[in-house]
Amino acid sequence: MFRDSESSPLAAAGSTARLRPLRVGMVGIGTVGGGTWDVLRRNQQEIRGRAGRGIEIVAVAARNLTRAAQVLAGANVQLTGDAIALARDPGIDVLVEVAGGTGPAREWLLCAIAHGKHVVTANKALLAEHGGEIFAAAERAGVVVAYEAAVAVSIPIIKALREGLAANRIEWVAGIVNGTTNFILSKMRDEGLRFAEALAQAQALGYAEADARLDIDGIDAAHKTALLAANAFGTPVRLDQVQVEGIAQLQAQDVARAERLGFRVKLLGIARRRDDGIELRVHPALVPARHLLAQVDGAMNGVLVKSDAAGLTMYYGAGAGAQQTASAVIADLVDVARLQGASATQRVPHRAFHPDALRPLSVLTGGQVCTRHYLRVPVAPGVAAQADVLAVLRACEVPVQSFRQEIDDDGVAQLLFLTQEVPERRVAQALRDLARTAGVMGAVTRLRVEMLE
Amino acid sequence: MFRDSESSPLAAAGSTARLRPLRVGMVGIGTVGGGTWDVLRRNQQEIRGRAGRGIEIVAVAARNLTRAAQVLAGANVQLTGDAIALARDPGIDVLVEVAGGTGPAREWLLCAIAHGKHVVTANKALLAEHGGEIFAAAERAGVVVAYEAAVAVSIPIIKALREGLAANRIEWVAGIVNGTTNFILSKMRDEGLRFAEALAQAQALGYAEADARLDIDGIDAAHKTALLAANAFGTPVRLDQVQVEGIAQLQAQDVARAERLGFRVKLLGIARRRDDGIELRVHPALVPARHLLAQVDGAMNGVLVKSDAAGLTMYYGAGAGAQQTASAVIADLVDVARLQGASATQRVPHRAFHPDALRPLSVLTGGQVCTRHYLRVPVAPGVAAQADVLAVLRACEVPVQSFRQEIDDDGVAQLLFLTQEVPERRVAQALRDLARTAGVMGAVTRLRVEMLE
Repeated sequence: MFRDSESSPLAAAGSTARLRPLRVGMVGIGTVGGGTWDVLRRNQQEIRGRAGRGIEIVAVAARNLTRAAQVLAGANVQLTGDAIALARDPGIDVLVEVAGGTGPAREWLLCAIAHGKHVVTANKALLAEHGGEIFAAAERAGVVVAYEAAVAVSIPIIKALREGLAANRIEWVAGIVNGTTNFILSKMRDEGLRFAEALAQAQALGYAEADARLDIDGIDAAHKTALLAANAFGTPVRLDQVQVEGIAQLQAQDVARAERLGFRVKLLGIARRRDDGIELRVHPALVPARHLLAQVDGAMNGVLVKSDAAGLTMYYGAGAGAQQTASAVIADLVDVARLQGASATQRVPHRAFHPDALRPLSVLTGGQVCTRHYLRVPVAPGVAAQADVLAVLRACEVPVQSFRQEIDDDGVAQLLFLTQEVPERRVAQALRDLARTAGVMGAVTRLRVEMLE
Repeated sequence: MFRDSESSPLAAAGSTARLRPLRVGMVGIGTVGGGTWDVLRRNQQEIRGRAGRGIEIVAVAARNLTRAAQVLAGANVQLTGDAIALARDPGIDVLVEVAGGTGPAREWLLCAIAHGKHVVTANKALLAEHGGEIFAAAERAGVVVAYEAAVAVSIPIIKALREGLAANRIEWVAGIVNGTTNFILSKMRDEGLRFAEALAQAQALGYAEADARLDIDGIDAAHKTALLAANAFGTPVRLDQVQVEGIAQLQAQDVARAERLGFRVKLLGIARRRDDGIELRVHPALVPARHLLAQVDGAMNGVLVKSDAAGLTMYYGAGAGAQQTASAVIADLVDVARLQGASATQRVPHRAFHPDALRPLSVLTGGQVCTRHYLRVPVAPGVAAQADVLAVLRACEVPVQSFRQEIDDDGVAQLLFLTQEVPERRVAQALRDLARTAGVMGAVTRLRVEMLE
């Protein structure tokens, strides 16, 4: 049995030797689990110095026990195929879930919580889908559910929103939170590649899975945006209210044209407070090329936060990787380890705001969202088509800020519009009307423009 | 009297209505104090929702009581000229010190700590000079000393180092942590101004005090670098071991030449771990123009952290301003307010590491520091002088990575060298030898180059 001196007054700050180690059970020992194992061992002395006690993985649940045993390499760790047994094990203080998936993971977490254990997870899909249920269970049980690794792994952005910016009314959050798509977009810009070519490179380099749909369709970014929004606004956000548009339809020519207009195309996750609700959306957007967020290249992530007192702050780091994810998982464990008293209840609320301060803010529909747009309209050469297109935009009350015409090698003229802020329903109407306008020679391309100021 | 329900089990997470407000006494109600007062009132509902209880300034100590009364505008706040009385007042849970200065502030903090109060301060000079004594007192008393506002005000960088990156062995921290000098350097670059002209503009715009020496001589940045280093490495750093060089000697021509070489000049605070100790230094440095840190312009701050698991992360935001500083002061108050139990001891160590894990790492002297250099050597035209200069560098074992010659309008040739990493003592020897070398036509300019990779 462990000697438990936690409730002794001698166990106060500074007396690290007096606290027994935090006992961790980990479900999953693949890429992230293996990274967590490695970093915890490599930096154990520093981590103990910071946490005030040791943090030890004492048990692991894995599907492939042979491979798990190879990673653990003879260490004195209990190994099981039964994650639920781990979640129930009274010898464990914290369950770390790095196995992925949503159905079984939900059960492991709820079981661990019901058995009074804190939980640390890197599972964005799980929390975006089942966070409400899991957080509520944890609040009843007085335990922590920590998930720094779920969003922009290496960047302590959940902590920044939940703690660092706690004084602020947060106005919006805009993030590059998916490294795979950012790598593809950087390739399209830097090398003029088409989407399919850039995706193939990302897959060859291991930045994208063979099935990259979660990434390129924006689903992964939507999971993260839902979690960011919950922490920014104190609202229980449901994933199904995030408007999602991926990058698979993005054309190389629009990336190049945006560049000539002084913009770069980035897949953004945006949560913005408006008078009548909040906007929640994931889509490719033009951002000013000179903006700091536009410099976030390759597989890196960056999150920009606009808040009323602190103003603009930005957070940048790796968005993927075994050790980078481990950094966040272990930071969460250190937070738990620093909850020293045996009777410690959850000090920091799971979604930044305490449960009774959560407000079900309404989420604006796509048509209500108000932002700037880039429109590319292929037209017959000459002033007649141009006048007709302008007339449609005027009739639909789409305010044009600037436009230019580019004549392509094939003789097609492309009208490029930058609009002022306009409700998307008006743009949608304009797109319908333009499809019926004589002189418009093909599909109109529409991308949002975010100035991020 | 206040109803104190903190120790009740009903006061657990989620029941914000049951906790009495945190009672704050504030010393100083100038720019930062006024901003803190404003933000706490404006966002009181959101802050209560996050903290789980109200945060109320119940007493203020100020030198100018008339002006203080104007700021408080009739609010029900006790006003006194006696800060020590506030530090002793049993009706106060936390003392916020935003008055500045070091002598009296040290006494206020030690008195408040001795009376069992948590302390929040924005005072970088105070903690850089007296932090060891103040933290030790707080650790004995089991109270918090929080100081997020002391470094890069709006950016939660202390929290990132102390908590978010707790899994990591931190390799180095490099920060633009002084907005005044960054504004001046941006002006010198963008408009080709000389230092004195840019300083005058900064003063006219209110970015610099009439006496700007603390900023331009690098002292303010040194205070912040000392605090960053303590949190990065878990070492009790003494301010007097930081090597400091300001920007007053920086010439416009070197800013311009650096630009042509693909670099920007920034005043960096650097704390770097080496095998034989740590480097602690503040000086202007060339950084690659395409680097994200080089994009931190004007009065903004940015801190880059290299750590072994998370890799490179960066944090960006405003480095000054009343509300921006208030954001950090109040975040610290929220942290304190979230220490719910009446018996809560300090959960998060003051310098990231628990006291018994602090290690007195040796600080490398200037000559031991190893980094790349930019050298500008004015020489007589022709190959003879060039050969002599190269011979000196070779003799002093200063490895040249690249060099070029620029002929100025006045006919003087300037040799521009970029070196590989080299101990500074060798560079110092080379500078002494070059001063005696025939063909060298004037003082050699030496700037460090930091690749920040």
